[in-house]
Amino acid sequence: MSLTHLDETGAARMVDVSAKDATVREAKAACHVAMRAETLALVVAGTARKGDVLATARIAGIMAAKRTADLIPLCHPLAISAVAVDLAPDPALPGIRIVATVRTTGPTGVEMEALTAASVAALTIYDMLKAADRSMRIDNLRVIRKSGGKSGDFEQD
Amino acid sequence: MSLTHLDETGAARMVDVSAKDATVREAKAACHVAMRAETLALVVAGTARKGDVLATARIAGIMAAKRTADLIPLCHPLAISAVAVDLAPDPALPGIRIVATVRTTGPTGVEMEALTAASVAALTIYDMLKAADRSMRIDNLRVIRKSGGKSGDFEQD
Amino acid sequence: MSLTHLDETGAARMVDVSAKDATVREAKAACHVAMRAETLALVVAGTARKGDVLATARIAGIMAAKRTADLIPLCHPLAISAVAVDLAPDPALPGIRIVATVRTTGPTGVEMEALTAASVAALTIYDMLKAADRSMRIDNLRVIRKSGGKSGDFEQD
Amino acid sequence: MSLTHLDETGAARMVDVSAKDATVREAKAACHVAMRAETLALVVAGTARKGDVLATARIAGIMAAKRTADLIPLCHPLAISAVAVDLAPDPALPGIRIVATVRTTGPTGVEMEALTAASVAALTIYDMLKAADRSMRIDNLRVIRKSGGKSGDFEQD
Amino acid sequence: MSLTHLDETGAARMVDVSAKDATVREAKAACHVAMRAETLALVVAGTARKGDVLATARIAGIMAAKRTADLIPLCHPLAISAVAVDLAPDPALPGIRIVATVRTTGPTGVEMEALTAASVAALTIYDMLKAADRSMRIDNLRVIRKSGGKSGDFEQD
Amino acid sequence: MSLTHLDETGAARMVDVSAKDATVREAKAACHVAMRAETLALVVAGTARKGDVLATARIAGIMAAKRTADLIPLCHPLAISAVAVDLAPDPALPGIRIVATVRTTGPTGVEMEALTAASVAALTIYDMLKAADRSMRIDNLRVIRKSGGKSGDFEQD
Repeated sequence: MSLTHLDETGAARMVDVSAKDATVREAKAACHVAMRAETLALVVAGTARKGDVLATARIAGIMAAKRTADLIPLCHPLAISAVAVDLAPDPALPGIRIVATVRTTGPTGVEMEALTAASVAALTIYDMLKAADRSMRIDNLRVIRKSGGKSGDFEQD
Repeated sequence: MSLTHLDETGAARMVDVSAKDATVREAKAACHVAMRAETLALVVAGTARKGDVLATARIAGIMAAKRTADLIPLCHPLAISAVAVDLAPDPALPGIRIVATVRTTGPTGVEMEALTAASVAALTIYDMLKAADRSMRIDNLRVIRKSGGKSGDFEQD
Repeated sequence: MSLTHLDETGAARMVDVSAKDATVREAKAACHVAMRAETLALVVAGTARKGDVLATARIAGIMAAKRTADLIPLCHPLAISAVAVDLAPDPALPGIRIVATVRTTGPTGVEMEALTAASVAALTIYDMLKAADRSMRIDNLRVIRKSGGKSGDFEQD
Repeated sequence: MSLTHLDETGAARMVDVSAKDATVREAKAACHVAMRAETLALVVAGTARKGDVLATARIAGIMAAKRTADLIPLCHPLAISAVAVDLAPDPALPGIRIVATVRTTGPTGVEMEALTAASVAALTIYDMLKAADRSMRIDNLRVIRKSGGKSGDFEQD
Repeated sequence: MSLTHLDETGAARMVDVSAKDATVREAKAACHVAMRAETLALVVAGTARKGDVLATARIAGIMAAKRTADLIPLCHPLAISAVAVDLAPDPALPGIRIVATVRTTGPTGVEMEALTAASVAALTIYDMLKAADRSMRIDNLRVIRKSGGKSGDFEQD
Repeated sequence: MSLTHLDETGAARMVDVSAKDATVREAKAACHVAMRAETLALVVAGTARKGDVLATARIAGIMAAKRTADLIPLCHPLAISAVAVDLAPDPALPGIRIVATVRTTGPTGVEMEALTAASVAALTIYDMLKAADRSMRIDNLRVIRKSGGKSGDFEQD
């Protein structure tokens, strides 16, 4: 098997998608930020405005989805038609679970956009809480669902 | 305890660092991309040019460090003085281990820059290998070392 | 009535436009920069090259239209097909009137692109003249015409 | 009087600030978004999460302050040390009042950064409410306070 | 003859392409970096990893193609479907020859994207070698082939 | 001799400048756009507003100088203190000569910023004239002067 992002000599290239059909495609990516229980309490407790930690991470994730092709060298620029970033505090971790969903009508999938959105939302949470907790970790970033396109649907935990 | 990135009403803000001294600061962040043994083989085997997977990820990580303040809403823009991204295939995972090191002379630390570099290097590896392996995961992203600044040095696995 | 940019729980999201048709859409936005008569005289008097104040503002506005989705968190990226920024000194204000016109063939309107172009053109004029006049104001930024799309045509002063 | 942003032939240039001292400088800019009373009610009424309209605008304004030199052609890039964007619903307008405060330690002032932050926060509010109200206007954008630097402190309504 | 990028009064504008068909278009641009023979030897000699000079330039060129509309004021943003940047050391120059190929399906050609990719790849080589050789020159940047679109195919040396 | 931008294994890295002093540094880069005499006539003839071709290129060059670290992977971000881009039609070429001058107070030189400014100004001229002349070439891009920094002053044609 060979890698599509390298040419026959092994040089990196942006794969040609000009012959691929534009179809509706969706991808979901997930990860979580693990933190101490006291840190999580700072996010979920208190006034409604404490919601700004999660609101800020959500906006950062949505904006990052649109910057994916700027960040990942061989990604194709594409017209994203929807992005949502869900953030759920989970005392069992303890930490915050993140799921990013991206949709497009285009010739390529949007896994990278969903992974980038989840990743930057997680980094934003880290940034806002790092003064309180230096032991946080961002874990288990992966695609959990993908639909549309020739390679078929895909789902994993 | 309160969060420095929220004001007294809970609204997000960029923390004022105008009274902080500019000192030399360094941060190291690490993560790994877990993949199937066959996928790792595609990266390490073959001609020297196969090195383009790792070279591409290294460049993407270095460039992303410079984009950190553009991606993370409350991060301060700062003059990065050095970035290195080390990528080591590890058959024991199996996968690729990533360590990003960032240095600055400035009023704030560079943990977010190091985490962003490691994160985007990992996403780039994912992108280049995703046609071969949809089960990859990016795991255990954290700061492993930080020095300089008032909060003191810090090290963890 | 509910807001389309918030989901049922009130969280921000990028509205899904994947089911909307791509049609030709146009929007015009306008504003003005109010300044002292002496300041306006610096722009319009003198050699032809003084035109560089207006030329610079025009270019800044056109480039900003292309950056709209990068700046406005929930805006969809879209393929702009035309942008024009008209700048007219008006001694009656005294100041400079700005009209930005943007066209696309796509699933969403271009009001935000036109507003962003007019806004950044106005900010650029402010920047170039601020050493001469600190009392300038940017006023009355609004959409003056919109056509194409399901919501129908619209026009206001 | 001549314009500092044009050379002796009238061509645009970025003014040389290499001989200016780095001092602490602050600027405050303000504007408001005028809207119908029913539109304002959609923002302030309802659940706490409705706060996402204001939270999104606040984040967009903070991020835009960091992009100022990217948007305004002759602005110098500078190391912002603090940004805050305050948003206050005002039933008397009716609408939302915006004040952006930016601080730096550097050779140039931060009026443009404050104006850009206020401007993009206003545009973001417009974007999130435009489906409900096409008659909104962004008005009275100006610098209300500036301190630091050789030109002296300045304050206006 | 008049220039399409200026309106009837001579003001710059982004040409309206909303009436043009989206067709497959390709452009190839080329240039070379001339350097001393000893400088070229530093690139081509040594271990396989020395390949990082060329790999870095290749990635920089590919990423720059995606930033074209951000850099060139009147360029239309477009969905690039493929980019390749070929770099060939040529002892006869002595120096490195660069060819960039870009493809899109859209209403405008991709000459500017190909020229930008070649240009930034050349600048990246310059950057990496400048400590060794201050006499380098980037020469003969031009479009060597263009196909698709109404203006017909084109080829030159 | 070894290359500073590669580590001992040959991997690309951003050179550490944290131990270098911040001094005033300046660089000048030059190139030209060669075109047919008739094409040059379109730029220089006619009304004053035809000046928008040169004004647009000048602005594009200045803005590109500020984007250098975003485009060139191993360039350090730095606080540019002045940029000027001079454009002179030269019937003897025939074509347009470009000189870009960049100044900073910082730990690294600004050759790359000057080269990038000249390069993007040239590409912008190409873009605005390409409908009239497909045979244009961008030639002889090089640093013509550099001062400040430990490596000493430098000058060449």
